[in-house]
Amino acid sequence: MHVTFDGSRVTAGSEARERFYDSRGYGRPRDGNLELAPVEAAHLLFRGDIPAVHDDRGGEALDFQAYLASQAVSEVDFFVYKDLRDRGFYLSPAPEEDAAADFLVYPRGQGPWDDDLAYRIHSKSERAEVAAATMRSLAGEDETDHGDDEPTGVLAVVDEESEVTYLSVDRRRPSGSTAHDIPSAEGDLLADRVLVGDPPAVLHERAFYGQPLDSEDDPLQLSLVEAAHLAGEGRLSLSGDGGVERIVERGREVEGERFERRLRAYAALRDAGVVPKTGFKFGADFRTYANVESVDDLGHSELLVRVVPGDHTFDPRDLALDVRLAHGVRKTMVYALADSEGVTEWLAVQRLTP
Amino acid sequence: MHVTFDGSRVTAGSEARERFYDSRGYGRPRDGNLELAPVEAAHLLFRGDIPAVHDDRGGEALDFQAYLASQAVSEVDFFVYKDLRDRGFYLSPAPEEDAAADFLVYPRGQGPWDDDLAYRIHSKSERAEVAAATMRSLAGEDETDHGDDEPTGVLAVVDEESEVTYLSVDRRRPSGSTAHDIPSAEGDLLADRVLVGDPPAVLHERAFYGQPLDSEDDPLQLSLVEAAHLAGEGRLSLSGDGGVERIVERGREVEGERFERRLRAYAALRDAGVVPKTGFKFGADFRTYANVESVDDLGHSELLVRVVPGDHTFDPRDLALDVRLAHGVRKTMVYALADSEGVTEWLAVQRLTP
Repeated sequence: MHVTFDGSRVTAGSEARERFYDSRGYGRPRDGNLELAPVEAAHLLFRGDIPAVHDDRGGEALDFQAYLASQAVSEVDFFVYKDLRDRGFYLSPAPEEDAAADFLVYPRGQGPWDDDLAYRIHSKSERAEVAAATMRSLAGEDETDHGDDEPTGVLAVVDEESEVTYLSVDRRRPSGSTAHDIPSAEGDLLADRVLVGDPPAVLHERAFYGQPLDSEDDPLQLSLVEAAHLAGEGRLSLSGDGGVERIVERGREVEGERFERRLRAYAALRDAGVVPKTGFKFGADFRTYANVESVDDLGHSELLVRVVPGDHTFDPRDLALDVRLAHGVRKTMVYALADSEGVTEWLAVQRLTP
Repeated sequence: MHVTFDGSRVTAGSEARERFYDSRGYGRPRDGNLELAPVEAAHLLFRGDIPAVHDDRGGEALDFQAYLASQAVSEVDFFVYKDLRDRGFYLSPAPEEDAAADFLVYPRGQGPWDDDLAYRIHSKSERAEVAAATMRSLAGEDETDHGDDEPTGVLAVVDEESEVTYLSVDRRRPSGSTAHDIPSAEGDLLADRVLVGDPPAVLHERAFYGQPLDSEDDPLQLSLVEAAHLAGEGRLSLSGDGGVERIVERGREVEGERFERRLRAYAALRDAGVVPKTGFKFGADFRTYANVESVDDLGHSELLVRVVPGDHTFDPRDLALDVRLAHGVRKTMVYALADSEGVTEWLAVQRLTP
């Protein structure tokens, strides 16, 4: 079987079309021949289905190792392609106009002859970075769990041992039913929080703001982000001069720009009926409770939220760490992408086994 | 009881000395009176043991809340002090010459009259940063698990709900017994790894370098850091031009300065008889195996290693995340502080319950 390589595409004859496309979903038919993407040819070479490809430019015959060494194909793509094939999927390189995806994966039992897609895959080395734009694109347009219509966007990370970790990316706007009327309170601004000497009971006991110093009758301490939000809503004043500006200023001193990003995400969560509390123990900005009637009857917190700038670059290693920890405590990891106006996207990232 | 505050120290009379120092370890005697650090006075105010302190400068009487609001004491210090008292410890503010420590904690049942120390505590808000120098100082001078002589250095992080998380910091130089003679091999440099077509068996099977593509007879793929180390040791050459420089250059393209830091830590671990493999699934640079005789008989990997620059600033939230994950998989989290010469410190950080 004569298979040629012109530097970007691999071409084989009609026999290859029957053997590889018709029965196993490799490549696509063109003019009676079979055109293979470089990664598809690499897989056929690796399996020994074709012994070599002939380089049209130099004339040499390239076996699997020489073909990989020629850098005709990224080995990261090869490992992802191979892993999905090993799992029983047929898949094709994504069209060039889909900038975020490297592969389109068909549902098990289907192939390029069918119309359905299971996954859109972006493949990356564990050492490379992932742009926020890529994550947004993988998450798709709709606020869905990728129903029947839209394929699940997946980041496939190839680690140094060439194992592949799959992370699904979904839009997931938090929503809840927490809503309590809160009377105004007055507090003192300390270095890193606000102390409310005589808090209205509803503030902590129902709306789950702050934490009493020790027992229920003690002063209530609010975090700076809680205090800034309440002050912004007109529910908290400070003894002495100044209001929300003084609190925000203190927050900025403590943690720079990150404070205002967190404050915007905090406000968006509260507006959506969700209670954000510190996620420190889980390495996140917030853990969230969707439906708080009373602190005596708190459910399990559902989400871990990390707030990042809208142009954030994700490190696959950090994603792996966050997602693994969240899974271990039965929560979902959500990234809030925030710009100066507010949170523009909520992206849930979860481990997936295709 | 008359207690006065001059802006930095709180002073009370001989009655206070008997009640607070002699029986409960607050403050230190001076000229027959009792001198209290601001945080000690805050705790006595909080408990109601003293109703107010009188501000020498303004003349007002400050109750607990007014005293905290006057910023006489950091509330972060107060929360740590209170938490340790609640746990049954006596503790004193650290002397000023100990720049990294805020508190010295006595063993349970002992106090400032005794010579022993259990912990040296550095207290921080979850939002603040921790300098590498502080971590170094907490770890102490010696390569010990803080035996009887040296108190354990502890980072106490106060989260937004004022819960305190304790992280111990120890020096922990990895060491192992992995040592195998490795014959030279030749490989092809791909985009993100090196492929060795005909590897000596010992390379993977005994010394645990790389990973076969699929089954044992397949080519062996080495990560860039493994390949760079082997090439540097004269055990790997590349087909085509160039050697270790080409690999390091590729590594630098992929992940910048971090590559060389990782390479130095990798070399130090191998030199110590320890096998580093990717820690990607745990969000770390490496997981390590101390004693590898054969890959068919691998033990549990003991450490997760994250390599950081020598002047790194630690974010308490990142520490919490790393340490929690490591604990969950029964490994110890170790930070390798590396400069351009190599790794200068190995710091193990672990959750501690005082």
